[in-house]
Amino acid sequence: MTGRVSLVGAGPGDPELLTLKAVARLAEADLVLYDALLDMETLKFATHARRFFVGKRAGRAAIRQDAINRLMIREARRGQRIVRLKCGDPFVFGRGGEEALALAAAGIPCEVVPGISSATAAPLLAGIPVTHRGLASAFVVVSGHAESAFGPVLRSLAPGSATIVVLMGLANRAGIARALADGGWSARTPAAVIIGASRPGEAAWRGTLDGLHAENLVEPGELPGIIVVGAVAALAGIISAQEAGEEPAADRLRPSASSR
Amino acid sequence: MTGRVSLVGAGPGDPELLTLKAVARLAEADLVLYDALLDMETLKFATHARRFFVGKRAGRAAIRQDAINRLMIREARRGQRIVRLKCGDPFVFGRGGEEALALAAAGIPCEVVPGISSATAAPLLAGIPVTHRGLASAFVVVSGHAESAFGPVLRSLAPGSATIVVLMGLANRAGIARALADGGWSARTPAAVIIGASRPGEAAWRGTLDGLHAENLVEPGELPGIIVVGAVAALAGIISAQEAGEEPAADRLRPSASSR
Repeated sequence: MTGRVSLVGAGPGDPELLTLKAVARLAEADLVLYDALLDMETLKFATHARRFFVGKRAGRAAIRQDAINRLMIREARRGQRIVRLKCGDPFVFGRGGEEALALAAAGIPCEVVPGISSATAAPLLAGIPVTHRGLASAFVVVSGHAESAFGPVLRSLAPGSATIVVLMGLANRAGIARALADGGWSARTPAAVIIGASRPGEAAWRGTLDGLHAENLVEPGELPGIIVVGAVAALAGIISAQEAGEEPAADRLRPSASSR
Repeated sequence: MTGRVSLVGAGPGDPELLTLKAVARLAEADLVLYDALLDMETLKFATHARRFFVGKRAGRAAIRQDAINRLMIREARRGQRIVRLKCGDPFVFGRGGEEALALAAAGIPCEVVPGISSATAAPLLAGIPVTHRGLASAFVVVSGHAESAFGPVLRSLAPGSATIVVLMGLANRAGIARALADGGWSARTPAAVIIGASRPGEAAWRGTLDGLHAENLVEPGELPGIIVVGAVAALAGIISAQEAGEEPAADRLRPSASSR
């Protein structure tokens, strides 16, 4: 009587962006393991599950990945239905593949429920289509946490041939701008930063590539930030994708006082 | 008393992969405009709306984009709540940006509701994480409909620096393989093709880049096909992302008899 594990994508933040399947899995779960950055409202769908926080908190070490894997395997062997709830999509960063491999190796039944990644949803909610006829017929999603991750991509890709979306790259935005400049991208290429897409406190900045690293953007709390570079970023000023009548999000983020 | 238009992503096919927000918008809609490839079950959530098919059918011209735009603008001005339902995500291919611009120019309130794109969900459901520690920290999504769209990206990108996902590229897969080879990619790079992800008839093939164009893959019906190239494609044989106990989808698609 082995249970099973569902690796479930929770989407970019707003609980309304959960899928029906995610809600169904939460409703039948005995145990939910969730990360930092999850909107707590999301857990209301887990009506009878025990809930475990397994993410990082500022200043404290996260539970190690192998400890999470062992916990899932042990509880599944006890017959529990487990939801491993991950922000965004389980297989777009976030180590879902590693967890699926660990479960497969242990012979635990596992399914993966896709979620909406902020890689596309954050630009969308700021009024930026990652593809647009005549402007971009490709997009690149890259981790900005280390030069070794984004460098080879951003330096080699033909300038202007795709929209660039960088996750987890706000701290490295000077290096990201430099890699693109080294690759031949124009300093005047439109660029945008979206922080906390679909969450309370959401904000955005837009400008051009040369302004990206100069700007001292305020990051409210620990909300995730996403960088978009490419001609489509200029559409953020024209397309309003949220709530009829509201201003585009791109007008809401102000550079901090110290950058003036 | 202007109505409004919601551009809503319907996800990759399975109605269970609709978001709660998509379901809410369908429930309150007066008019739903939908594309080809939509699972008809999805429309059950539109309990009182008129429904208009505006997609392409085999052998018949589609309704022109400007006619769709005019229809939305006219009905919104009559106070109707309109859902423009698009497969996948409205801003990942599919011309959602053009529709949002046309609505903005006409002063019609417009919101965009993100959906799950098959660019990430199709690989996921076949057991392929587009990013994976040690294998890929970036992925590229590119339209395969024309050499001018995919050529500059695939020829320039540093070989192996990202997972490649090609949408609408099955017919051009020889040219896609050639562009990657020109760019320096090894013929032995793992590759996969996923057809009709999350739909009845779903099937997949996996092999290596040099087999991609040689293979005479059967495309059942008009189901959309997606190509994945990169080290992560090899995980399809190990990770089973669907229904506990089922075989990985990658074992279900057979090359057609004519290729043997």
